[in-house]
Amino acid sequence: MAEVRAVGLLGGGVIGGGWAARFLLAGVDVQLYDPDPQAERKLAEILTNARAAWTSLTDAPLPAEGRGTIVSSVSEAVSGADFVQESAPERLDLKQSLLAEADAASGPDIVIASSTSGLLPTLLSADMAHPERLVVGHPFNPVYLLPLVEVCPGERTTVAAVERAMAVYESVGMRPLRIRKEIDGFVADRLLEALWREALWLVNDGVATVEEVDDAIRFGAGLRWSFMGTFLTYRIAGGEGGMRHFMSQFGPALQWPWTKLMDVPEITDDLLDTIEEQSDAQADGADVRDLERLRDRCLVAVMQGLREVPYGAGATLASYEERLREKA
Amino acid sequence: MAEVRAVGLLGGGVIGGGWAARFLLAGVDVQLYDPDPQAERKLAEILTNARAAWTSLTDAPLPAEGRGTIVSSVSEAVSGADFVQESAPERLDLKQSLLAEADAASGPDIVIASSTSGLLPTLLSADMAHPERLVVGHPFNPVYLLPLVEVCPGERTTVAAVERAMAVYESVGMRPLRIRKEIDGFVADRLLEALWREALWLVNDGVATVEEVDDAIRFGAGLRWSFMGTFLTYRIAGGEGGMRHFMSQFGPALQWPWTKLMDVPEITDDLLDTIEEQSDAQADGADVRDLERLRDRCLVAVMQGLREVPYGAGATLASYEERLREKA
Repeated sequence: MAEVRAVGLLGGGVIGGGWAARFLLAGVDVQLYDPDPQAERKLAEILTNARAAWTSLTDAPLPAEGRGTIVSSVSEAVSGADFVQESAPERLDLKQSLLAEADAASGPDIVIASSTSGLLPTLLSADMAHPERLVVGHPFNPVYLLPLVEVCPGERTTVAAVERAMAVYESVGMRPLRIRKEIDGFVADRLLEALWREALWLVNDGVATVEEVDDAIRFGAGLRWSFMGTFLTYRIAGGEGGMRHFMSQFGPALQWPWTKLMDVPEITDDLLDTIEEQSDAQADGADVRDLERLRDRCLVAVMQGLREVPYGAGATLASYEERLREKA
Repeated sequence: MAEVRAVGLLGGGVIGGGWAARFLLAGVDVQLYDPDPQAERKLAEILTNARAAWTSLTDAPLPAEGRGTIVSSVSEAVSGADFVQESAPERLDLKQSLLAEADAASGPDIVIASSTSGLLPTLLSADMAHPERLVVGHPFNPVYLLPLVEVCPGERTTVAAVERAMAVYESVGMRPLRIRKEIDGFVADRLLEALWREALWLVNDGVATVEEVDDAIRFGAGLRWSFMGTFLTYRIAGGEGGMRHFMSQFGPALQWPWTKLMDVPEITDDLLDTIEEQSDAQADGADVRDLERLRDRCLVAVMQGLREVPYGAGATLASYEERLREKA
């Protein structure tokens, strides 16, 4: 099938709006359905940020922006679209009904993807007449900049649907990761969730403030994680002895009491108050738009820097730029 | 007390050698004790990498390199040194005896730091006559580039010793993080360990290969973590509703089965074989020196990019460069 020309988007929050910006800036038309009366304003704000980011990110010629339309129903959103992406709030019943509605309103060869962070595609497709075209396409915030999208098929999803979704994502500069097994949280969110639980314990137990937890990441391992995951990092830590040496040296530490892995902190009002207070102190008066701009500026700096290295996100960006230059 | 002029280093492996490079490139003399007959060769290799990294990292005038000497005993290493850093293998008895030996051989006002990843400073100082000058100073690999160093006092450590260690680390361009409570693994390694356990489960259960786990980090959340930790990221994810909105929306997900947090995978020979094979495939013929060079090149690119943003590691680098320029 040819490249994607128009997408139907269901949901226009932080994630759906990020998808809209990603597709529009790649020259794809967008039909966005969101019942929120503020949807148009929110989309415009995200799009402003995304344009600014891409302008400083690359000097490759960006295509003419796609045409964005806010529509008032699911069937209008999917009408004429050659790909559909659902990004509703993380409630199974809500997603199931939206997906069934999109399923009924679009030709059966159109692939429908869900942005769910962790719900199983087989469950999501329960009410669909054509569950074989449903995949999970789980992106990361901000969707218009971060390349990762996890692609996970359900029990009845066809290989063709998975490949179509991966091709669509690649065509807009992303780095799809095919997930081998249907599992709650897929891969990335399981890793993030493990770290997040421990972070909550550290704050709950008064070991660190939210700012100190963040500093412990961003001044150390976080800098490495922007281009190299845990396994390759530890292979290097094994020195000349390599991965097996590392595992035999540090494997036993897994049994030490270095995480509170047996339990989950209860989100009491006290803990909520602590986190809110400390988070306010950390933000130091910056509102969410300021923080988004800071985040985007840093991301652009990091991704631009990595473009000089033919590896990781740098390679993804470089190959997308190459395609843009070929088309221009 | 004045800036540090000479340090005594105990241990010259990946971490100790990284300290040597960090101090030498900052113009500090190093006396390194390591019983490994290969110590000199290993140090020279690390130093070559570190010099290359700093040359591309900054155009600030680096000071004349310190003088590095490999010595054959603990007492020679600490003799005349105004700061001591121990980086022996992670065995309590070994570290205790080295620290006691350094304690006996140096004036009682010299601060002694241990690079331990997670052993408690109170335990480490058990055999010292002057436990009040022992702190943990836990760095991250590669020590000559990553700014983070966790500083953790034991029960008997003085405030002055903590402040001295923090000042020494800042003087060589690092970003010390004071740890509030003595706890196994401190802060950063508890977070890393939580993620690492889940990563091992994913490989153990055949959900992902080691390369896929790494990709799930470095093309997504890892890019953000290079400048922004988990809490600030989630505050932004809360959108206009902020941190409390995020917590109430995603707090319940903590109870979902998104991690195998109740258990630790057993490191069987089968799992070791799988990890080794997949890690070899991922490295694709690159040896550890190749991988170190790739890592350093990426780190330099990321840190250089962030220098343009007055935030995170960029701010640390910029303030160090400013001090170097003042001194030149």
